[in-house]
Amino acid sequence: MRVLGVDPGLTRCGIGVVDIGADRRATLVYVGVVLTPSGDPLAERLLAVSRGIRAVLVEYAPTAMAVERVFAQHNLRTVMGTAQASGIALALGAEHGLSVGLHTPSEVKAAITGYGAADKAQVGAMVARVLGLESAPRPADAADALALAICHAWRAGVWSDASRRGGVGLTGDGMTSAQRAWRAAERKAVNR
Amino acid sequence: MRVLGVDPGLTRCGIGVVDIGADRRATLVYVGVVLTPSGDPLAERLLAVSRGIRAVLVEYAPTAMAVERVFAQHNLRTVMGTAQASGIALALGAEHGLSVGLHTPSEVKAAITGYGAADKAQVGAMVARVLGLESAPRPADAADALALAICHAWRAGVWSDASRRGGVGLTGDGMTSAQRAWRAAERKAVNR
Repeated sequence: MRVLGVDPGLTRCGIGVVDIGADRRATLVYVGVVLTPSGDPLAERLLAVSRGIRAVLVEYAPTAMAVERVFAQHNLRTVMGTAQASGIALALGAEHGLSVGLHTPSEVKAAITGYGAADKAQVGAMVARVLGLESAPRPADAADALALAICHAWRAGVWSDASRRGGVGLTGDGMTSAQRAWRAAERKAVNR
Repeated sequence: MRVLGVDPGLTRCGIGVVDIGADRRATLVYVGVVLTPSGDPLAERLLAVSRGIRAVLVEYAPTAMAVERVFAQHNLRTVMGTAQASGIALALGAEHGLSVGLHTPSEVKAAITGYGAADKAQVGAMVARVLGLESAPRPADAADALALAICHAWRAGVWSDASRRGGVGLTGDGMTSAQRAWRAAERKAVNR
């Protein structure tokens, strides 16, 4: 399963592509960020986002897309640009025939780190670990896009057979041992 | 000047095209509404909006685009879909090389009726009058899209020469006699 993850944004739009095997293992295919100058006209900035996403769709031909679900309640200053970028991503996904999923930041954090309130550094570190990278992808928008893609595949259950067979790195509760470690560390920190 | 007006929305997206002459006269070229069922997946609905706008861009080749400026403060329930649709419209406008303008509802109402707090019925009636239609275009989203297009052209000042020469229907303050009538009636109603 090849998943395109999009962390929508106007100033920085994170785009990541991962392959997820039946054993739940994730492999990095592509990661990048579309940057648009805040001084440019809004329509030009949105077009740059559109072209950036379309180029990755054409080049890497993912079969599924995951986009962060945007809430109107948060970050009123930036939410409109984020929503506009997400609309463009979703329409492009449908245009290319992808199955499209929306995930909240909490869902992504929980899927990746086992802890829904994990911070950006924890998500980045876990994405690096899952993908076997030496360090977390920068900027955070790039890591978030990859986290979205991994979350989407894992939640879709592509690994469920491997999980039942006790797939590599998996524990009975469907978490990787690294996820369990994060969650245990978080609980310790919270209870301190 | 041929202007495409878009009143962005997910359930109903108003699309209108008008020609505006140097004498400020406006002629209806096209009006329509993209309707998407609320039960359909979000990405499919946004794709339908995208295809609807693109079809009009290709068919009628406008040179400018006017889109309603969306504010995060209003209508929290529907604002995300509205913002997503507006993002798609803006990117399409830039992709087709149009000059793109954003106008607030107050700006549109003031330009069309001479009164920034005019209601939908007043805007619809004035759009019909300006375009020489027998009745206001329905639904209101269609009339709003036409109002946006007319507002954009008038604010861009395509009529300014005609205005200085005392163009047909224009008064010295740059309003049509109909706009003055609306404003006078409104003032009377407010002062009553």
